[in-house]
Order: sequence, then C-alpha cells, then structure tokens
Amino acid sequence: MIDLYAFPTPNSIKVPILLEELGADYTYHAVNVRAGEQKTPAHLALNPNGKVPVIVDHDGPGGHPITVVESGAILIYLAEKHGRFIPADPVARVRCFEWLLFQASGLGPMFRQSGYFLKLAPEKVPAAIERFHTEAKRNMRVLDGRLAAAEWLAGDDYSIADIATYGWIWRRAFADVDFSEAPNVERWFNAVSARPAIGNAIARLGASA
Amino acid sequence: MIDLYAFPTPNSIKVPILLEELGADYTYHAVNVRAGEQKTPAHLALNPNGKVPVIVDHDGPGGHPITVVESGAILIYLAEKHGRFIPADPVARVRCFEWLLFQASGLGPMFRQSGYFLKLAPEKVPAAIERFHTEAKRNMRVLDGRLAAAEWLAGDDYSIADIATYGWIWRRAFADVDFSEAPNVERWFNAVSARPAIGNAIARLGASA
Repeated sequence: MIDLYAFPTPNSIKVPILLEELGADYTYHAVNVRAGEQKTPAHLALNPNGKVPVIVDHDGPGGHPITVVESGAILIYLAEKHGRFIPADPVARVRCFEWLLFQASGLGPMFRQSGYFLKLAPEKVPAAIERFHTEAKRNMRVLDGRLAAAEWLAGDDYSIADIATYGWIWRRAFADVDFSEAPNVERWFNAVSARPAIGNAIARLGASA
Repeated sequence: MIDLYAFPTPNSIKVPILLEELGADYTYHAVNVRAGEQKTPAHLALNPNGKVPVIVDHDGPGGHPITVVESGAILIYLAEKHGRFIPADPVARVRCFEWLLFQASGLGPMFRQSGYFLKLAPEKVPAAIERFHTEAKRNMRVLDGRLAAAEWLAGDDYSIADIATYGWIWRRAFADVDFSEAPNVERWFNAVSARPAIGNAIARLGASA
C-alpha cells in the first residue's frame, strides 16, 4: 500500500495518474497547500523541502517502507518498480528522460512563475510578467515541436514523460498559455485526457477537470 | 567519441565533469551563450530548446550516433551507459534521482532567477529579487540538511546527483548565496572540488575556478 500526500496541483497530479495507470493501491492524504499545510512540522518530517507530492511506499526495496519526494523521482521510482511506462529501448529511454527533465527544469518552473506574477503576486511587476510569460509560451512551442514529430514524448509509447508534462498543460490557464500556437500539444492533450487514469486521478484528488 | 556543445555555465559544467570521471574521449565545442550562439539555426538543429549543454555520442545505442539534450538527461544517459556514478542499490538510486530532480527543478531555477534579478535585469525589481533570493537561500538550507545526514547526496557514494548539483554551488556568488548557513554544503563542496575531474573539466572549458 502507498500513502500519497498531495493536493490537486500540476506536480501532485502526476503521481495519482501513474498510480491509476498501474492499478496500485493507494490512500490519498490531502495537504492543503493554499493553507500552507506543506510547511507544517508533520509534512516537513516527510519532505524537508516542504512540497507535495510525497509517497510512502510500505512495500519498498527489500520489503521495507520508503519515503520518496520530488514528483519526477516518484515517477521514475514507480515506473522502474513496475517495469512499466519507462522505455526499455535505449533511444526511447533517452527521449523519456530528456522530456521529463525539460518539464521539471523548464516548462514547469516557467509556467509556475508566469502564473504567479500574472495571478498571485501582490503587486504587478511588468518586467517579471514579460520575462516568465514569454518563456512559458516559448516552452509550449518547443513542446509542440516534439509532438509534431512524435506521437508521445518518448516516441511510440506513452510514458512517464507524458505523465510528468500533463499537469501543467492541464493547468495552462494559470500561466496564461493556450493551444493557439501549439496544435500538436492540443492533439496530445486530448489523447492523454481520454485515458481513464486521468479522470480517475482527478476525481480521486477532488479536483475539477 | 563524444562532441560536447557547452559553455562554462552551471548546467554545462555537469557534463565534462562526468566525462572526465569516466575518462571518456570528447571534443569541446564552445557555444558562447553571452553572444546568443545557443539560438543560432545550427544550435537549434541540435537542441530546439536553444540551450547548452548538448552531446552527440557517435557510439550511441546500437553503435549509431545519438544527440542528447538536458543536462540531467545527459548525466543519466552517460551514467547508465557506463554503469558508473548511478547507484544500483535501490534506496540509493531513489535518493540519487530525488536530489538530481531537486537540483533540476528547484535549486537550479531559483539560483538562476535570483542571479538574473540581482545582477542582470535591466531594471531593479525588488519584489522579484526578494522572491527568488529568499527561495535560493532556502534551497541551500534544504541541501545542507541532506548533507548533514549523508556524505554524498545519494548516500555513501559519489553520484550524478552530486555532479548535477556542483555547478550552481560553484557559481553560488551569481545568486548571492554563500555557505554561512550551510556548513555541510561547504564540506561537501570542498570534497567534490578536490576530485581531479573537477579541475580538469573547468580547465577544459576555459573557465576560472
């Protein structure tokens, strides 16, 4: 059994999507990040970085429990444990890690900052809005280029690279990014959204689609 | 033989550090990011995301050449190819990916934005400086907590998680972050810096230590 500490955020949603794809048994514990619950002592004991998602897999290596943080690392851990959604073909495997890292290091942080300065910042800072909104839209075009050339981010098969990327495309309105310059991302988003695991994960976290 | 397209940046330096550790044969091609060379058509053909580092491994899967982008993905590719600097032990392997992702998604982007708004932005934006400098320092403290508990980021052995993290700690002054609240990071930084591969990589890229 897996304990999932999460909230309906673009990063959190990655994990129940994969858990649903795997048919894994998990218990969802809501950590209300809007109320700051990710910074409580109880949560910091799970993740000193004070973020969601976190999992505790009670059937970890050697049958012992293991706590895993960082959404990308959780995806890799679960995919390797089950031998699914991570390519065995060496070229597809490279592509999978490239796009997982592109999401983690580029698209995700830029969408987050774009949304923060557009929607949440207490004061309007035009220079910051310009910087991050421009970069968020550029990241969307880079993603579109990949999905013009391949059905899925790793190539022929759906993988944790797609799952990692889905959350921010699902929440693209926060960053004020749309599909107008990214028809291939739209095609991909609709194909991913049609997978039952997506609806199940969103329902499980009590989020709105 | 490997072609390395890079520049003495915190992300680029990861790759020659690992190549030096592996004793790999590589040719360095400088891509002057200060002159915008990462956005030329020639470089965009290698990496549509317009970033360094990029490698072309002429002895890729099946003996065919492969181009790999995203510094974290390059580290994973090379470490898996050589079976070195990536843990086989399943718990250490989880920690390795956690800290590699922490660097890629958190510490790296926050150090970069802290430095940008402190040092490079055409106008002073106090709200952005406060946001990113505070977060960069917090990331440093989180890293320090890990290195208070473990010799290396993955645990007992030096790995690509350490190599991934080194670049921004090397260039911490850009982000205006120091070791005053991070004595364990300082101990770790000195231990990593003493490895011959570090000096060799820095010299190869023509950077100053």
